[in-house]
Amino acid sequence: MESKQFDVVIVGGGIIGSSIAYYLAKENRKVAILEADKIGGKSTSAAAGMLGAHSEYKEFKHLYPFARSSQLLYKQLYEEIRELTAIDFEKRNGGLLKLVYSENEKKELESILSLSSVEWLDNKEARKRVPQLSKEVMGAAYLQEDVHITPLIACNSLSKGAQLFGAEIYEYTRVLAVSKTGMEYSIKTAQGTFLAKNVVIASGVWSNYFFQQLGLSHEIIPVKGECVAAINEGAPLRYAVFHDQFYIVPRNNNELIIGATKKWNDWSENPSLDGLEEVIQKAKKMIPEVGEMKWTRAWAGLRPQTYDGHPYIGEHPEMKGLYFATGHQRNGILLAPATGKMIRDLIIGTPVEKEWLDAFKVERNIFAYGGGK
Amino acid sequence: MESKQFDVVIVGGGIIGSSIAYYLAKENRKVAILEADKIGGKSTSAAAGMLGAHSEYKEFKHLYPFARSSQLLYKQLYEEIRELTAIDFEKRNGGLLKLVYSENEKKELESILSLSSVEWLDNKEARKRVPQLSKEVMGAAYLQEDVHITPLIACNSLSKGAQLFGAEIYEYTRVLAVSKTGMEYSIKTAQGTFLAKNVVIASGVWSNYFFQQLGLSHEIIPVKGECVAAINEGAPLRYAVFHDQFYIVPRNNNELIIGATKKWNDWSENPSLDGLEEVIQKAKKMIPEVGEMKWTRAWAGLRPQTYDGHPYIGEHPEMKGLYFATGHQRNGILLAPATGKMIRDLIIGTPVEKEWLDAFKVERNIFAYGGGK
Amino acid sequence: MESKQFDVVIVGGGIIGSSIAYYLAKENRKVAILEADKIGGKSTSAAAGMLGAHSEYKEFKHLYPFARSSQLLYKQLYEEIRELTAIDFEKRNGGLLKLVYSENEKKELESILSLSSVEWLDNKEARKRVPQLSKEVMGAAYLQEDVHITPLIACNSLSKGAQLFGAEIYEYTRVLAVSKTGMEYSIKTAQGTFLAKNVVIASGVWSNYFFQQLGLSHEIIPVKGECVAAINEGAPLRYAVFHDQFYIVPRNNNELIIGATKKWNDWSENPSLDGLEEVIQKAKKMIPEVGEMKWTRAWAGLRPQTYDGHPYIGEHPEMKGLYFATGHQRNGILLAPATGKMIRDLIIGTPVEKEWLDAFKVERNIFAYGGGK
Amino acid sequence: MESKQFDVVIVGGGIIGSSIAYYLAKENRKVAILEADKIGGKSTSAAAGMLGAHSEYKEFKHLYPFARSSQLLYKQLYEEIRELTAIDFEKRNGGLLKLVYSENEKKELESILSLSSVEWLDNKEARKRVPQLSKEVMGAAYLQEDVHITPLIACNSLSKGAQLFGAEIYEYTRVLAVSKTGMEYSIKTAQGTFLAKNVVIASGVWSNYFFQQLGLSHEIIPVKGECVAAINEGAPLRYAVFHDQFYIVPRNNNELIIGATKKWNDWSENPSLDGLEEVIQKAKKMIPEVGEMKWTRAWAGLRPQTYDGHPYIGEHPEMKGLYFATGHQRNGILLAPATGKMIRDLIIGTPVEKEWLDAFKVERNIFAYGGGK
Ligand SMILES: Cc1cc2nc3c(=O)[nH]c(=O)nc-3n(C[C@H](O)[C@H](O)[C@H](O)COP(=O)(O)OP(=O)(O)OC[C@H]3O[C@@H](n4cnc5c(N)ncnc54)[C@H](O)[C@@H]3O)c2cc1C
Ligand SMILES: Cc1cc2nc3c(=O)[nH]c(=O)nc-3n(C[C@H](O)[C@H](O)[C@H](O)COP(=O)(O)OP(=O)(O)OC[C@H]3O[C@@H](n4cnc5c(N)ncnc54)[C@H](O)[C@@H]3O)c2cc1C
Ligand SMILES: Cc1cc2nc3c(=O)[nH]c(=O)nc-3n(C[C@H](O)[C@H](O)[C@H](O)COP(=O)(O)OP(=O)(O)OC[C@H]3O[C@@H](n4cnc5c(N)ncnc54)[C@H](O)[C@@H]3O)c2cc1C
Ligand SMILES: Cc1cc2nc3c(=O)[nH]c(=O)nc-3n(C[C@H](O)[C@H](O)[C@H](O)COP(=O)(O)OP(=O)(O)OC[C@H]3O[C@@H](n4cnc5c(N)ncnc54)[C@H](O)[C@@H]3O)c2cc1C
Repeated sequence: MESKQFDVVIVGGGIIGSSIAYYLAKENRKVAILEADKIGGKSTSAAAGMLGAHSEYKEFKHLYPFARSSQLLYKQLYEEIRELTAIDFEKRNGGLLKLVYSENEKKELESILSLSSVEWLDNKEARKRVPQLSKEVMGAAYLQEDVHITPLIACNSLSKGAQLFGAEIYEYTRVLAVSKTGMEYSIKTAQGTFLAKNVVIASGVWSNYFFQQLGLSHEIIPVKGECVAAINEGAPLRYAVFHDQFYIVPRNNNELIIGATKKWNDWSENPSLDGLEEVIQKAKKMIPEVGEMKWTRAWAGLRPQTYDGHPYIGEHPEMKGLYFATGHQRNGILLAPATGKMIRDLIIGTPVEKEWLDAFKVERNIFAYGGGK
Repeated sequence: MESKQFDVVIVGGGIIGSSIAYYLAKENRKVAILEADKIGGKSTSAAAGMLGAHSEYKEFKHLYPFARSSQLLYKQLYEEIRELTAIDFEKRNGGLLKLVYSENEKKELESILSLSSVEWLDNKEARKRVPQLSKEVMGAAYLQEDVHITPLIACNSLSKGAQLFGAEIYEYTRVLAVSKTGMEYSIKTAQGTFLAKNVVIASGVWSNYFFQQLGLSHEIIPVKGECVAAINEGAPLRYAVFHDQFYIVPRNNNELIIGATKKWNDWSENPSLDGLEEVIQKAKKMIPEVGEMKWTRAWAGLRPQTYDGHPYIGEHPEMKGLYFATGHQRNGILLAPATGKMIRDLIIGTPVEKEWLDAFKVERNIFAYGGGK
Repeated sequence: MESKQFDVVIVGGGIIGSSIAYYLAKENRKVAILEADKIGGKSTSAAAGMLGAHSEYKEFKHLYPFARSSQLLYKQLYEEIRELTAIDFEKRNGGLLKLVYSENEKKELESILSLSSVEWLDNKEARKRVPQLSKEVMGAAYLQEDVHITPLIACNSLSKGAQLFGAEIYEYTRVLAVSKTGMEYSIKTAQGTFLAKNVVIASGVWSNYFFQQLGLSHEIIPVKGECVAAINEGAPLRYAVFHDQFYIVPRNNNELIIGATKKWNDWSENPSLDGLEEVIQKAKKMIPEVGEMKWTRAWAGLRPQTYDGHPYIGEHPEMKGLYFATGHQRNGILLAPATGKMIRDLIIGTPVEKEWLDAFKVERNIFAYGGGK
Repeated sequence: MESKQFDVVIVGGGIIGSSIAYYLAKENRKVAILEADKIGGKSTSAAAGMLGAHSEYKEFKHLYPFARSSQLLYKQLYEEIRELTAIDFEKRNGGLLKLVYSENEKKELESILSLSSVEWLDNKEARKRVPQLSKEVMGAAYLQEDVHITPLIACNSLSKGAQLFGAEIYEYTRVLAVSKTGMEYSIKTAQGTFLAKNVVIASGVWSNYFFQQLGLSHEIIPVKGECVAAINEGAPLRYAVFHDQFYIVPRNNNELIIGATKKWNDWSENPSLDGLEEVIQKAKKMIPEVGEMKWTRAWAGLRPQTYDGHPYIGEHPEMKGLYFATGHQRNGILLAPATGKMIRDLIIGTPVEKEWLDAFKVERNIFAYGGGK
């Protein structure tokens, strides 16, 4: 095979790589996604799909404004993508109830509750929205903007959207090495070598390899999440409910997605029996009647964790034209549009918020661990 | 168990029974669905979901106006049900292209083409809408009103809607016999006996049993349909395409539903290898590139066929209060709302179109076979 | 369809019906199985497959000798069937450890332990056989004869064996009514009427209907059992382990079958989240490390329970030539060969143990509930 | 993580890597398998499992004796592994019928037919063994030694066997690079670095990467094979049947495995609709009645093809202690034991047949294409 030439080659076709491809292809860049497996088949397909800009962040310095901008991008993306690709990724309004079982827990939500879009619901009001809540629930922060989508469909729609704008999608094409000769990058695969002016590493937990191969000591830690789903046999659930990083998310087809455990540094992609037991117990703590509902399926996926809780979105410190976009942890679905846009802007030379550049840059002190685990 | 009492007991929770339950519960009737298996788990879950009021009928006497009224009901039902149940059954606009490969075939479409909502597309215009059409396609009738939905989700949403209006849903509850004592019906099941003023038999191909048990010689013939699905790896398909009773229907998640064979009087619910071979061949005749697409699943279902091509929607000739709503053949998804509404009207005493009463009544001459096979 | 004539029509093609068919066809009787769904697709396919003649019975009057004779029949059946059908139903030697956690529990096993084929293992010996046992286990009764098989494969092999001896198998053929005219039975189905000199009702929990239809007030209660399976990632498990009616059964392909809950009078055939939680907990109590193993699948099935814990195997009190063979509860896989043989003997007129005739006869006092729940 | 040290690290846990691990661990070598995904989850799980020492080879120089020795090893392995691991990989005697439709085809089998273990069956005799053969079949070579097994179970049993002899199995552990420092190899993974005196590359079609990374220009070409399975509803099939590289292989559970297409240089691991159509057609050419049988599943896998049709089993030309064991094409299941044994012998210093060393050595002229495609 003769080497193909592109403006940008993206390594990894999860939701991050697919979003980047979409934003770049829309600006007429010649783009390729090289995906080792199937588009969206890894962490992306395991996600619940909450766009938790508010639910996920306790601090509001860098990630919140970034996350919030991404949340807003989804509103327009939803219509645009449906129009373009004929795929509907099921954005469900309604938002999310962050449940509170004690005064202490309520106190922890103080900063979120101070936001204008967030509302405190006492016991009675919470139950009005979700009648099936456990009696133990004291109240809830109602995050109406934290809606949810169906991740794998969203990912497929972004990659297909990119394709319709001219991008080329190579599935089952694992990148083996990236190297630079002069101004150009060579991206080696078993299917041949690709050439590109820019490369974006968007390989989720597997980005580790490229950090190493490209001379960096950064590390992504997989945090395995195990899930089950059930048929909602009770009253409609119009909101996602959330407590202690577990949640129940309703889908358009009446299925409830229940997740997720957190198994630090576990690379296996199957659920264990312990994991299933744990998520069932946590779900029943929120909505006791789910225990009686019919099980439909179980699965697991890996969250790409970084040491300080921020993703890496930025250029390699030395290799110009080589970008990383990875480490989105529990929030890669939420952050995909903002990440796609930011990488696009970096590549085409549009200005990007100074704060985000600093917060997500690759050359920050990666061992200053600041939570997010 | 003490016998439970209802205004109406519906035997069968496919899309027909679920729709009837919905319309009656909405009018405050005390309704129960008794379903032998899972709601929607039989023929309904096998359907492609086309609302083919125009594509399916060559004659426009009785069924067309009925089908068309049902198609129109779906428009309002879609929003209403989503609001009520939080379930979205994926009504997809776009409509259907009935493909034509020869002048002869075009001639057969004359009466459809005379309708104001139907448009003739020549080769070039057809290809503008569906670029991937086979070169052999001469043109197409574009039936823009013949949109499609996702049948199992629709069925679940109707039964859940009914439940929210007070209906009771009994799954895994097979009806063994229906009998009348005085003014009341006893409906016998292994889980106990139910009592009701009215009974509706909506048991799909399995309604046969009740015809027999209730002294009628009517017969429903199963016509097995086998299907496969594939991932749409090409351009978006914005329309269903249809030829010679085979079709390719695009779903919101980028899957293509490809169906369906017709195996007369075959009661088995699994696809055979021959069946899969046939649908793949027919699909490739319409859109050759589907041959290269990735297979995702295969299944089969039974269409409840009648001898004259019309469903039975009406009262038992002698047993007042006992209704049949079955025999919807290839079009039960389409006809569900109109059937639900008609049975509701019969039971609550609202007038129904005389023509429909006659065309669908149980006591018509069932052996005057008039096509529709 | 013209009515087909048989010596024996069997209603239900689970393991009981299939075994009966096998034994009768082997004696040159003209046999048909009429199965509403797929052969073995109901309770039979949910079973773990233990042949627990010793583990399941605390009293040794009637059922034990019957069960034991059935266990012995499996030994010869295994080779015979493999030879005949080329199907191997995976009889696994090794037997079963009935675990004991306290002196009290040990006492309950006294009568079993008195049997010559049963051995008491103290803590150390038990752990030698199953090193991964929980520390809490005090010892175990080792029932070396209580081996296990793969039930669905066994059922398919029996029905195929019957077929090779001339039986006719009708799947997707639900029997609607059985009636007698003169010396002959009519068996009505939607596919036509079958005629037979003898009829055997072997419809599992659904036999209820035929008791009713044939004028008897007997009742079969479904006791739902929920299961999960996992990959055995630890040491080989060469024995089934058993405690408090829960168990872990190893399969030839390295899968562990873990079951089963007991949900009285629950007719649904799906596992609930509660059920999965419970079986996982019980399994971990026996072998803690299963918690870490990879989940593979989950399912549920219905055990056909009778009031006194004995199956019904015998003739209708009034209708000569009509037999019941149902109500095998937790032990239908074990009891299938002996049941098949007994029904064969009743039909062809070979003498049957008097004790069994009495213990299992239909006209016994069905409300003298004697356990077995 | 501190680096772990091993005698031998095996890269890839398909049947080849698992067999190597087994033979080495049995000789008390400290072995690790590093497997990127699940043990056996790639090509191995897609295979039909024929041990076609005779059916697959037209020439009898190098591969046949090697293949035949492997076939014989399976006989003893079967019992040994079952004893050790409690896993039964379902070796099914019976052998294979290589079908012939014309005099020309018969002529092509001349050399096989000259072997003492191979028997010519004319039309009548062939039909006696497989009554359901197509009328067009003229006769068959009966290869009674070419029995079959269930590949994924065999692979799991070998890796578990290795584990029981002390090997360590790391699933979800992708090797990123292999390098040598002094006498020791470093094997880099995202989970840490492993150290070893010897490394064996057994990564199937993905071995390409290591050829490149280790300075060799060898190439493995994937040849995708697509399959379907069906329930055998007819007479028992006691033999595999084979024609034109398509086949029908019966399993112990009454399933028929039907394969397989050959898609040169196709890296995707899903079946396409075209592929399914083709295997169904080819199967019907051998046994027409399979068309009517019930479909159960469909899948695809990649055969690791080399240019001259021989695997690479030998040392790196320059890097001592680094071995390749890959490129087994259509016959990796068959060749696994002999490959495992040969690599073991190379590593522990036992003599190996000179002919095999030469025929499979890495430094042969890889571009002298000699068929096997
Ligand atoms: C249980 C669970 C629940 C979650 N819920 C949510 C949620 O509700 N909301 C939310 O915002 N986030 C959620 N997440 C997080 C979210 O799933 C991830 O942050 C997101 O999917 C990361 O996307 P990605 O594209 O970086 O990774 P992936 O989706 O893993 O994509 C990376 C891709 O790179 C490919 N690849 C790897 N190596 C190579 C190579 N060498 N060459 C080519 N391709 C390569 C992989 O095959 C893969 O397809 C959840 C995660 C889990 C596990
Ligand atoms: C392959 C295929 C494609 C199709 N495509 C379309 C399409 O595109 N558009 C369209 O309009 N139609 C389509 N159809 C037709 C459509 O599926 C049927 O007309 C429709 O599902 C019939 O609905 P139903 O409720 O009558 O039957 P079912 O869905 O079969 O429901 C009957 C229910 O009754 C239950 N039942 C049976 N016996 C008893 C008893 N004794 N007691 C209690 N419950 C009982 C059953 O378990 C079942 O759930 C298609 C059908 C097939 C097979
Ligand atoms: C979780 C679980 C674990 C178990 N483990 C074991 C075990 O380890 N060992 C053991 O010995 N037993 C075990 N059992 C019990 C065993 O499964 C049952 O006793 C046995 O399967 C009963 O067989 P059957 O043929 O009577 O019923 P089924 O297998 O249910 O067969 C009855 C058949 O009749 C058909 N039928 C129903 N109505 C009609 C009709 N009107 N017309 C035609 N056909 C009809 C049904 O479709 C069905 O196929 C277990 C059960 C469960 C649920
Ligand atoms: C449809 C089909 C039918 C077949 N039928 C037969 C048959 O009947 N008889 C027969 O003998 N053969 C058959 N074959 C061929 C047989 O399947 C293969 O030859 C055999 O499986 C090859 O085994 P393997 O271990 O080399 O490859 P694989 O099974 O593919 O194993 C290679 C392993 O390496 C792992 N790996 C890859 N890269 C890395 C890395 N960087 N780090 C760590 N691990 C890695 C992979 O995940 C994989 O598990 C068939 C093949 C197909 C596709």
